Amino acid sequence: MPTIITPKPMSGFPELLPAEQIVFNRCLDTVRRTFELFGFAPLETPAVERKEVLTSKGGNEKEIYALSRLAARPDEDASTEYALHFDLTVPLARYVAQHKEKLVFPFRRYQIQKVWRGERPQAGRYRELYQCDIDVIGRGSVSLLADAEMPVVIYHVFTAMGVGPFVVRLSNRRLIQGFFESLGLSPEQITAALHAVDDLEKIGVDKVRALLVDKAGLSPDSAARALAFIASSEHMGTEALLGHLASLNLNERFNQGVAELCSVVQNMRSLGMPDNAFKVDLSIVRGLDYYTGTVYETRLLEHPDLGSVCSGGRYDDLASYFTTEKLPGVGISIGLSRLVLRLLEAGVLKPNAATPTQVLVTTLDPSRLREYLGIAASLRAHGLPTEVYLEQARIGDQLKYASRKGIRFAVIAGETEFAQGQVKVKDLSSGFEHVLQPDQLPAWVKEQR
Amino acid sequence: MPTIITPKPMSGFPELLPAEQIVFNRCLDTVRRTFELFGFAPLETPAVERKEVLTSKGGNEKEIYALSRLAARPDEDASTEYALHFDLTVPLARYVAQHKEKLVFPFRRYQIQKVWRGERPQAGRYRELYQCDIDVIGRGSVSLLADAEMPVVIYHVFTAMGVGPFVVRLSNRRLIQGFFESLGLSPEQITAALHAVDDLEKIGVDKVRALLVDKAGLSPDSAARALAFIASSEHMGTEALLGHLASLNLNERFNQGVAELCSVVQNMRSLGMPDNAFKVDLSIVRGLDYYTGTVYETRLLEHPDLGSVCSGGRYDDLASYFTTEKLPGVGISIGLSRLVLRLLEAGVLKPNAATPTQVLVTTLDPSRLREYLGIAASLRAHGLPTEVYLEQARIGDQLKYASRKGIRFAVIAGETEFAQGQVKVKDLSSGFEHVLQPDQLPAWVKEQR
Repeated sequence: MPTIITPKPMSGFPELLPAEQIVFNRCLDTVRRTFELFGFAPLETPAVERKEVLTSKGGNEKEIYALSRLAARPDEDASTEYALHFDLTVPLARYVAQHKEKLVFPFRRYQIQKVWRGERPQAGRYRELYQCDIDVIGRGSVSLLADAEMPVVIYHVFTAMGVGPFVVRLSNRRLIQGFFESLGLSPEQITAALHAVDDLEKIGVDKVRALLVDKAGLSPDSAARALAFIASSEHMGTEALLGHLASLNLNERFNQGVAELCSVVQNMRSLGMPDNAFKVDLSIVRGLDYYTGTVYETRLLEHPDLGSVCSGGRYDDLASYFTTEKLPGVGISIGLSRLVLRLLEAGVLKPNAATPTQVLVTTLDPSRLREYLGIAASLRAHGLPTEVYLEQARIGDQLKYASRKGIRFAVIAGETEFAQGQVKVKDLSSGFEHVLQPDQLPAWVKEQR
Repeated sequence: MPTIITPKPMSGFPELLPAEQIVFNRCLDTVRRTFELFGFAPLETPAVERKEVLTSKGGNEKEIYALSRLAARPDEDASTEYALHFDLTVPLARYVAQHKEKLVFPFRRYQIQKVWRGERPQAGRYRELYQCDIDVIGRGSVSLLADAEMPVVIYHVFTAMGVGPFVVRLSNRRLIQGFFESLGLSPEQITAALHAVDDLEKIGVDKVRALLVDKAGLSPDSAARALAFIASSEHMGTEALLGHLASLNLNERFNQGVAELCSVVQNMRSLGMPDNAFKVDLSIVRGLDYYTGTVYETRLLEHPDLGSVCSGGRYDDLASYFTTEKLPGVGISIGLSRLVLRLLEAGVLKPNAATPTQVLVTTLDPSRLREYLGIAASLRAHGLPTEVYLEQARIGDQLKYASRKGIRFAVIAGETEFAQGQVKVKDLSSGFEHVLQPDQLPAWVKEQR
């Protein structure tokens, strides 16, 4: 007898039962299908990168899991040069720098993979999670049209996924930087001010005001003007706001930001984005200094505490740590694990069956096994996920098995049916039974769906 | 300027260009769709397990990657309790033991995930690879019918994937054990003899004969009889072989193995498995002592050096390290990374396009952007993966972009077309051009595919 190791859940590493896994996979499929609909090509990088690749930018060491070989000799260094990626942006940068001579630009790629974060897990935070990223990367430049596509892709993904009401909020970093420049701030002050504004939703307007004065060195009057400027987007419609911004004419950078924002909004609409699915929101700045133009966040209106479920923006230089060539781009990332697990908890996404099986061929009479297996083969040949009840059990138990797994149709055939060259099919969702010839079965089942 | 880290390939961690990735993903989809067609439910376990779970069985420590936090304080232990899984069987065992009260049995699950192996990579071996597993698990027992399903699933997967000619070879461990018992061997001798036979293909008949005599302690005569017995399956047809085996009547265990093998073959045929896709091969024993009945291997006839690309078998007890409850089952595992990468190299699987995009909407006249974006939106609304050419470029360069990415259709519209309320669509594979109304475009493109 081996020693029994009692399995227990691992904090931060989500694991689902089959019915939930089916919902999760359906969401992954929706993301993937939508990304492909917009012409993004699949990319998958290894889960591991060289450590120096992951630490190139600095600041993430705390959350990186390094790999070592478990069984090293005592005199041997077990550590390896590898670690698990913590996002998909660094691997993308490394990939594009490494393979750029073989890629066609603008390079449009999606990447749906797990990432790992070695932090102490807090409520609702994961150590292993799925990210779903798209980016459009150029050599030297990328059209602002790509910035307009991103919210449209988000809109299609979340609509198809059925996540409930949501809004893509967008702004432009140049615009807000230009605004702070117009208040006479230095670049260092602007960085501090942007970080303060980024926390607006989390800490509230009074604390941000204090940060603007104490950390960023704004005068109380400038801080008030900045907060009023940012708040202006809250109560103005898109047209009015864009018109107002265009009229301010604060400086060149500000004006460029406004012009970019107007262009992005206009092209989003041409791409079919409805007005109620997006909002210009000047409080969106994204903390990362990496972003240089358009920035996005996405909120579920009924789950504001989830924060942004899809964020991103425009950057000037994707891979500055891996190549001297300028590779600007724009991208977004969906934090799928957190989103889907929350929506499962909240009952917005509902598990249904615990199996893809649509038809269970029961085995009422074991001597007729060959016929049962043949019926299953014919249903599968028509693309219908089918199981044969493999064990010996009473028909009642076989139907109970189907119900428990959420299988909708059961095929039942005994002496009576075989004598007439027919089979009975039962719709377990309605209790309705139908008798037909075996070769009519696939078409009949397909019709019912 | 940051220091540039020049990215370089990581040995054993395969990475593909988009066109190859599309082929790889198509193979993954084929596996998944086929597994679901047979009613296997999706399961995904975390990439990491607790170390003691992975080492429960022993013997795999060398290939396990353990996780540690990269940035630990000097006084802090950076090591964690986690390591990356090296296969999907141990996680399945842990999962079923942990969640068995919430699962419906027989539990039919598939699992398509990456696994990691911290070995020194040799040619063609990977440190990160995809495995695609199916298993049917019972509480207490599982019908032998499940053993018959496995080769049929393999047959459907590899046929749909287009891997070229292949044969599923199968045998039964009870049968071969019974045979060795009939020679008067002890259980220890039988284990040694089975390990010797397992190497037959790799080291040849003479070396196996030597092992049988020197390691397993068979007399030269017994060794010769064993090798003749095993060789008998090489030149006999399935019917003749099964008849011959049934006539031998060596002992109870042998007879049970023969009866099981006969039943599996018969039910495979009822499930539609053609005779040329399988072969009873008495040299198949699978090294693992874990298997107790039916065993499978799968060879590509034109790539014998790949070894078995899909193996598995029947086991008595899945999760003996994690629960005292007996959980017998049967399963197979496809080593997808090695298989697909080899078939790509060999040209059996051919990359085609570097993007899922089927239609490129060119932007001949930037003042007509709104119309171009609208055309793209309408193609997408009809499910057609569509890109708009985002940059400013001459039409010739735009078409070159489409060709380089393998996009088949290009929509072109300038003054002439707009004046007539029409667009031109060019099939880049044939050069054929067609002029039509924009609303006819989606249907036309779908017809051409």
